[in-house]
Amino acid sequence: MGNDRTIDFYWEVGSTNSYFALHLLRPIAERHGASIRYIPINLGHVFRHHNYVLMEEPAAKIANRIRDLERWAERYDLPFRLPTIFPIKTSRALRGAIAMRNWGKEVAFVDAIFAAYWERNDASIQHYAGLRGIAESMGVDPDAFEAAAESDECRASLIGATDGALARGVFGAPTMVIGREIFWGKDRMDFVERELTRS
Amino acid sequence: MGNDRTIDFYWEVGSTNSYFALHLLRPIAERHGASIRYIPINLGHVFRHHNYVLMEEPAAKIANRIRDLERWAERYDLPFRLPTIFPIKTSRALRGAIAMRNWGKEVAFVDAIFAAYWERNDASIQHYAGLRGIAESMGVDPDAFEAAAESDECRASLIGATDGALARGVFGAPTMVIGREIFWGKDRMDFVERELTRS
Repeated sequence: MGNDRTIDFYWEVGSTNSYFALHLLRPIAERHGASIRYIPINLGHVFRHHNYVLMEEPAAKIANRIRDLERWAERYDLPFRLPTIFPIKTSRALRGAIAMRNWGKEVAFVDAIFAAYWERNDASIQHYAGLRGIAESMGVDPDAFEAAAESDECRASLIGATDGALARGVFGAPTMVIGREIFWGKDRMDFVERELTRS
Repeated sequence: MGNDRTIDFYWEVGSTNSYFALHLLRPIAERHGASIRYIPINLGHVFRHHNYVLMEEPAAKIANRIRDLERWAERYDLPFRLPTIFPIKTSRALRGAIAMRNWGKEVAFVDAIFAAYWERNDASIQHYAGLRGIAESMGVDPDAFEAAAESDECRASLIGATDGALARGVFGAPTMVIGREIFWGKDRMDFVERELTRS
């Protein structure tokens, strides 16, 4: 208690479950006076690092996954929608989030890209065509935004965040880290909350 | 409401998460006046049917899985212990549970084999040497028990249960089915409970 309680939230906009975690984590953090540090990671890189291949799954399992997502959306009253284009390239959007720190708009940008892709079936966030529009809607000059997202500094920052996640034991998204405890998945939020009550 | 509410609980004693589900499901069923139908399935057969191979997982993921199991055990105050011999042959134990229906002791037997393997690190339930002792402790003649578990009828019953599960869309254990809704995993119990409140 009275500690500086920070939740490191490792996210990837291409990850279905990161969408849910993004929305489920905030009320928990607020209830316990914890802050959330948003850390984008390149999940493709994480999987390649671990030689992890998304395998072909049985049809019954895929059907259940879709039904499960519907249940989560209903239960938490989220306007989730499975996108028709999947997977997408996400590195520009991830770097865009880092770039937005320059304007103090990281969180709003994260919300915007998740809403575009996971609520409005808008895959334009793969490219600057879509990302520039989001920047502009936030009052950020699109050219300055794109230049920042394409900068060496921003590229190094995403690589560093991803490597840092790997070094820490992160293997997927969403992952929430509190101190040395690593929680993986949208369905571990009650354990995240328990950890906050004891730290 | 007022319906005959039954939860079909597909379990496999070789499945770590079935252990947790076994204990988490009962209080939910009791709260809602639902009955549990215990249906053993041969999970190896289910995986082979789906050409599903338990893949090698990254070390970080395995480490997290073990920590996660510790958290579940602590949270639900269960004396769970990772067995040192894993996986084990489970078909005799699964058929044994079916055989025990003859003596009205199916549920007690299910509890006993899960406790032996997942709480006391006792892998003797692979063989009749271990299973006979459990039968005897329940006042069931071990020879009669073994004969029933080895009978063609009992073998056909396990095959039928497993095939029936597959036909229904079951792809893993634990699985809970209520009506047409299929819930997979120890971490979907709150959705099971929600389903019971509406059915």
